Parts: sequence; C-alpha cells; structure tokens
Amino acid sequence: MARRLVVIGGNAAGMSAASQARRRRSRDDLEIVVFERGHFTSYSSCGIPYWVGDLVDGPDRLVARTPETFRDEYAMDVRLCHEVVAIDLAHRHVVARHTAGGEPVRERFDDLVYAPGARPVRPDWAGGGPEGVFGVQTLDDAAALMAWLDAGPAPRRAVVVGAGYIGVEMAEALVRRGLAVTIVERGPQPMATVDPDMGSLVREAIRAMGIEVRTGVTVTGLKDSDGRVSAVVTDTGEFPADVVVLGLGVRPDADLARAAGLPVGRTGGVVTDLRMRVADGVWAAGDCVETVHRVSGQPVYVPLGTHANKQGRVAGINIGGGYATFPGVVGTAVTKVCELEVGRTGLLELDATAAGYEFVTAVVRSTSRAGYYPGAAEMTIKLIAERGTGLLLGAQIVGRSEAAKRIDVLATALWNRMTVDEMTALDLGYAPPYAPVWDPVLVAARKAAVAVERADYRS
Amino acid sequence: MARRLVVIGGNAAGMSAASQARRRRSRDDLEIVVFERGHFTSYSSCGIPYWVGDLVDGPDRLVARTPETFRDEYAMDVRLCHEVVAIDLAHRHVVARHTAGGEPVRERFDDLVYAPGARPVRPDWAGGGPEGVFGVQTLDDAAALMAWLDAGPAPRRAVVVGAGYIGVEMAEALVRRGLAVTIVERGPQPMATVDPDMGSLVREAIRAMGIEVRTGVTVTGLKDSDGRVSAVVTDTGEFPADVVVLGLGVRPDADLARAAGLPVGRTGGVVTDLRMRVADGVWAAGDCVETVHRVSGQPVYVPLGTHANKQGRVAGINIGGGYATFPGVVGTAVTKVCELEVGRTGLLELDATAAGYEFVTAVVRSTSRAGYYPGAAEMTIKLIAERGTGLLLGAQIVGRSEAAKRIDVLATALWNRMTVDEMTALDLGYAPPYAPVWDPVLVAARKAAVAVERADYRS
Repeated sequence: MARRLVVIGGNAAGMSAASQARRRRSRDDLEIVVFERGHFTSYSSCGIPYWVGDLVDGPDRLVARTPETFRDEYAMDVRLCHEVVAIDLAHRHVVARHTAGGEPVRERFDDLVYAPGARPVRPDWAGGGPEGVFGVQTLDDAAALMAWLDAGPAPRRAVVVGAGYIGVEMAEALVRRGLAVTIVERGPQPMATVDPDMGSLVREAIRAMGIEVRTGVTVTGLKDSDGRVSAVVTDTGEFPADVVVLGLGVRPDADLARAAGLPVGRTGGVVTDLRMRVADGVWAAGDCVETVHRVSGQPVYVPLGTHANKQGRVAGINIGGGYATFPGVVGTAVTKVCELEVGRTGLLELDATAAGYEFVTAVVRSTSRAGYYPGAAEMTIKLIAERGTGLLLGAQIVGRSEAAKRIDVLATALWNRMTVDEMTALDLGYAPPYAPVWDPVLVAARKAAVAVERADYRS
Repeated sequence: MARRLVVIGGNAAGMSAASQARRRRSRDDLEIVVFERGHFTSYSSCGIPYWVGDLVDGPDRLVARTPETFRDEYAMDVRLCHEVVAIDLAHRHVVARHTAGGEPVRERFDDLVYAPGARPVRPDWAGGGPEGVFGVQTLDDAAALMAWLDAGPAPRRAVVVGAGYIGVEMAEALVRRGLAVTIVERGPQPMATVDPDMGSLVREAIRAMGIEVRTGVTVTGLKDSDGRVSAVVTDTGEFPADVVVLGLGVRPDADLARAAGLPVGRTGGVVTDLRMRVADGVWAAGDCVETVHRVSGQPVYVPLGTHANKQGRVAGINIGGGYATFPGVVGTAVTKVCELEVGRTGLLELDATAAGYEFVTAVVRSTSRAGYYPGAAEMTIKLIAERGTGLLLGAQIVGRSEAAKRIDVLATALWNRMTVDEMTALDLGYAPPYAPVWDPVLVAARKAAVAVERADYRS
C-alpha cells in the first residue's frame, strides 16, 4: 500500500512540501492529500498591495500554481474550502470539513505536514461591526476588498490601522487608487522594523506621498453609518473612513497543533527541529512555526513567504527520503515604501540591547553608482557591530534606488559571522554604473571598523 | 626630525595610502612627497568610457581629489609630471625627474609606497605609426582621444582592438558618439571574463547595439594615410578606421621595483605580504602588485580600482602605525555591456579545470522581480561547484536589469567558503519589487545542490 501524506494548508509552505515529496516519490509510492480552507493554492500574499494598487492584475497573476496543476501534473488530491478541525496523532488521521458545512471526513496519514499559516491579529473592535473593514492576509480577503472598492459609491477616505510593511504598502496602494489615506499606528514610528533614526527617513517618504501618518494613536472602535463604517474612533479623536484596512500583523495558527499535543514555543509558533520535524512523521512549515535567529540564538517568529517556501521544501525533501535542514534566519526584510527602498537584516539596536550585546553603530551616506554616473542616488546605511569583537550584528539601508537589495550582502556576511573589519576587504563588484569605487556596504564597514577600534581604546 | 614617506604614483593606490597615513600621522610627524607622472591625481580610469560616450563631463568630474586638495587639506607635497627613475634602497632615496626633462632630483624616504600602476599592452605595430591610435588607460590618454574626436574632420569609422571590458565599453561609447564601430579580438569570444555559454549572450547584446564583432582576428599592422590611420590590417583582411582604440589590457608596471631588487612574482606583479609590505619600510599597492586568489590559492594579477583603493588604504594604515591586511580577492567583476549587465566572481570553468577541481555546473533563468511585478527582467545565473563537497567555486550572471550586483551575494558566499547546499538557506531579502519569492541566487544554488547530489550518486 502506498504511503499517505496529508497536508494542512495549500499555500507556500504546504505546497512546497508536497511538491518536493512528489519529486522524490511517485504516485505509486506516495498518495498526497491537501486540505486548503480558501479558494486558492500557492499564491503571493505579498503581491496583494500591488493588485489593490492596480500595478498587477489579480487574482490569477498572483497564483504561482493552481489546484488544477497540482492535481494534473503532481497527482495530488487538493481539496479547496476544506478546513481541518482535528488531528488525531494516536490514530494517525485528521478530521476535515467543507467550510460551507456538511459531514466531517476522516483522512488517514503516514506523514503529516502542518502548514495552516497565520491568523491576522483582530482586536475586539474589529469583529462583527460595520461593513467596509478588511484584512489583507489572503487572496480571499483581497478579493473582498477589491469588490468593496469597485462597488456602489466609490470610497474616498481610507484609514489603514497599523504602520508595518503591509500597512504602509496598502496605504500606498489606496493612494494610487485616488483615495485620501491616513495611517494610524499605536507605536511611536511607522516601520518599527528599522531603528528610529532610519525610520524617520521612511516617515518623510510616506508623508511626501500625501499619506497622513498618525503615531501614538490607539484605536478603540469603529463608527457605523447604516451598517457601513464611517470613521475609526481612537484615543485622540475620530478619523473619517469609507473603508478600513487592518494591517496589524499576524500570529501563528497553532491552535490545532496545540490541541493535538504538539509542541508550541513561547513565540506562539509550532516548534520544529532543523529538518522541520515536530514529532514522528509530523512536520510543520511556514507562518505557523517559530524558527531560530542565527544572530541572537533565540527563537523568533518571522512570517515571510520566503521562509515558508524554504521550510516547506526542506520538509518535503525529508519526507521524500532526502536530507535537508532549515538552519534559521538572520532577520532580512526588504520593502518599497513609496519611492523609498528599505532593507534590514540582523538585530536592531533594541534587539541587540535585549540580547545583552554591547555594540557600536555607524551610519554612512553614499550613492548607488559612481557619483559622476547618471542616476546615482543617495543611500544611507547603518551597521551595528559588537564592541570588542567587531562582529556584525545588524544592518539597515534606506535609499532611493538600487539600495534595498544591497542588504543581501550584509545578510550573507551576517550568516557567516563576519566582523566589520573583515568586511572592509570583501571583493564586491565595482563599475561606475553599479557602485562608487568603494561600495556603500564597504564604506559602512570601514566606518564601523573605526568605531569598534575607537571603542576599544576608550575602554 | 619628521619621518618621510615617498609615494610613487598619485592615483588610487598611492593616494589612498598617503591619505590613510596622514589621518594617523600629523604633518609634524610625517612628511609626505608624491610623484605622479601624469597631470591628475586620484581619478577614475573606469569612468573614461562614460566621458568618451558623453554620459559624463570630463575630465574634472572623474577626479575624486585634486592635487590642490592633497596639498592644502592633507599637507602633501604632490609633484605632477614627475617620473621616478630609480629607487636606491641602500641609501633610502628615490631619483625623480620632470617628464619634460631637466635635472633629476633625489628624495630621501623612511617609508616608500610603490604604486605606479600598470602599463597598457602595446604590440609592436601600435608604436610610432600613424596618428589616430589611442590607449584609454589614463585621463591623459582619454584627453588625447577626445581632442582627436573633436578636431578636424569628424572620424566616422572606429576600430577597437580587444574585446575585454574596456574594449566593449569603449565600443559602446563610440557608438553613442555616432561612429560605426568594429571590435577585433584575437580570442574566440568577446568578454572572455565569462564562460563561452554566458559570453554568447554578451555577443548578442553587442551586436544588437550595431557593433560588429570579429573574433579570431589577429592585428598585424596599421595603414597610414598622410600620417593618419586609415585602416587596421589583420590576418583576415583590412578594417577601415579613422580612429583606433587599443583595449588590449595592461601589465604591472614593475620595472623600477625589479631594478631595485624588490621581489616580482610570476604574474609580473610586485609581491607583497598581507599588510602590503614588500621589504622593510617599502610598501606596494594597486595595479603594479599581484595578489592571492582566495579560491584557487594561486597568485593572480587583477588590476582593478577597487583593489587598488583597498590595498592603498591597508598600506597607509600600516605606515601610520595601525594594523590592516588585504587578504586577497575572489575575482569579482561587473560591467555594463550595452543594455546587458554582466557579473562574475570566482573561477571560470577553465580556471577550475586548471586548478585541478572536479566540478558541476548549474545554469538557471529567473527574473529580477516577482514575475507579476512590472519591470521584471530575465536573468541567467551560472554556478560552478566542487564535486563531492559542493563548495562554490565561481558564479556568473547575465541579465537586463538589477542583475550584475547580485554577484556580490555570491562573492560574499565564496569569500566565506560556503557550499551551494548551505546557500539554499541564505536569508535574502524578498519583496515583489525586488525578487521572486525564490531569489535567482537561491534558485541557482538549489539547482547546483541537486547537481552535486546527482554527481555523487553517479560516482
């Protein structure tokens, strides 16, 4: 009898796992059943703001592989609109149900991939209130928002709650559609994913786009006008809104795993080993798991499509009989904020302090190309290095073009535990259309190395 | 009495050394005398094609720091148009002479920086013949070429001899000025700095620009018409030319060093230790030295401005009483060939074979951005990995945009001796405007890892 793989969640992590398992095990060797609660498989959630902003046609363009492809080319039994409601480890089966109701079905498994993803954070005030309030976590969410924007009287004022990546990207998308947009954020700065000094550059760019940014504001409720939202109520007054978008982040969807007795960490994510295994024959991947931060050594929760894909691939290789590991993250992220490119990796100052490091920082301004070459654009790079050893701990970049992806060099340096002094010698590509003769990354490393040396003299 | 530093060569390496020494030693501590045979200091040779192509004003824009700046702000005695003709190590002095003639002068030194740079390769046929034949090594060369292009009857047909970086960049520049351009190259492909499979993409781009590329052609002479060049004569016929540009590469200018008894390696470059020291109180840096290739472990000659700057900085820090090393190169280079971006690092297949490696290769096509995001452009990445260990040995990238500088990630991975399997886990920045969810670098690493695994099964 063929072995049986059941996959909970048909997005990046789940389908990567299933695909890799299939590559190594034919349909005669391995049956694969996938339960997905939504209407789509393997799509780019990160593309949603560009669909809403009319830069990309949706939703089909955002789907990497359709359920039909998985059925026809990968021989998988993909069941959409199916929610798994229980995992029975003792009897090796799951119980699933169509989201429209109906009889629960029971499916036996030899291997199980747990990949339901994340649940958006929903404060009490966001539930069951007026219409016109949307999350942007899934393609189904985005389809609902798009239908609202296109139907009836065109909304004119939008409020985005939360100024993280997704909030800022959605704000920009709504401005592109002609709405007047306000972002309200409880914390002191937009994009708390960079240090405050770098964040202030981001705040300026958001404002320059005509978006109002209100920080230090706590939402307490919504105002209802004939069943439709008309304002967001906060501790500092009301913000009129014809549509509200929630960008409050996500938490791991670990409830089913916890109920089944699987380990859940203090970040709220499912705990796996390096091969993405949770228990005998049980694997987990994607936005439902926690991982290790390779700089701090601590468990962290970093829900990103790139990690989900890698973790799913690793689980699938192992299920298929190969050997692969996911050795953690260094906290890299890039985003486009209006005309600004923002990249970060490693620890922020806040994180470095929390992790007990003594550190120095260096901030430099340089240009994307040789200063004399047309199109050279300014960028700011900040490095954080451990005092004494000079180990790189973190890096942030803000620039106008050809800036954000330079973070990859710093992420690779961080991955390999380089010191800023070593980094000054890195053999990076130089030609006038691509960099000054000292690449901005090297300029930053030089300044950080000097800061480490000086801090040493002082101590 | 103040110590005395004499610097031979006032370009990237020499002036970086002098500047770093000055930062650590005041004018009361250290006298600095610089001899430079040309009219400029600290300029970007790499910018010359963009000046000729009218993308950049020249020559002033290409000068990072003028002699006046070094004199006034760095308290250096900078002597332009001065050629050093002898180094007397026993008596610790150099002999220099104005290039226009006159009495030789003798200058005592405690420390000497040898940084005269490179000499362009000049075949016999290129010397003393008709007018209209130009090198493009120095700003003085470029100024002569520009004067020729702007004076008298405008040249209409150009022949560029040599299809390396500088040859191709110059060909493009001359096309921008409206000339009909032919490149003649002795070898079998343009841009032999990448493997032939990648080189064929480059050849197409050059042709698409309207440039004729003739490979396997050996130049034997020049045709003279009233003292002006009228054609390039080759073993496969004549190529009419009103102007000829020589892009035949350079060799280290090590003659003076050799004459003084300083060590010169088999690459022809001066040999230094990791601190850029050649002998007691004698330092060398830039296009006159050889360095170590960190992948092959062999000495190599890689004349590039970025290395010259780093090596000069290292020498200067050491002269100033600090401690710094230049730990070698991994062979990274990037260039813009017409609308194509080309990057490379590490060993080519040819090099890997010569170094005795057994290896596998992987070539992938991917895109610069998420496939659905506007402006996503195709790129091709090739990786070379050691069979058995999976160690990355080299990488090449050819693409239309946002491609070349991705080589820096691969260069940093190479620097840290990563395997392609390890590289599949690298935490690179992902967002739709910057990369597909699997960055092209990761796609390449995955394919290479599979190739390593399969080669293992076969053996």
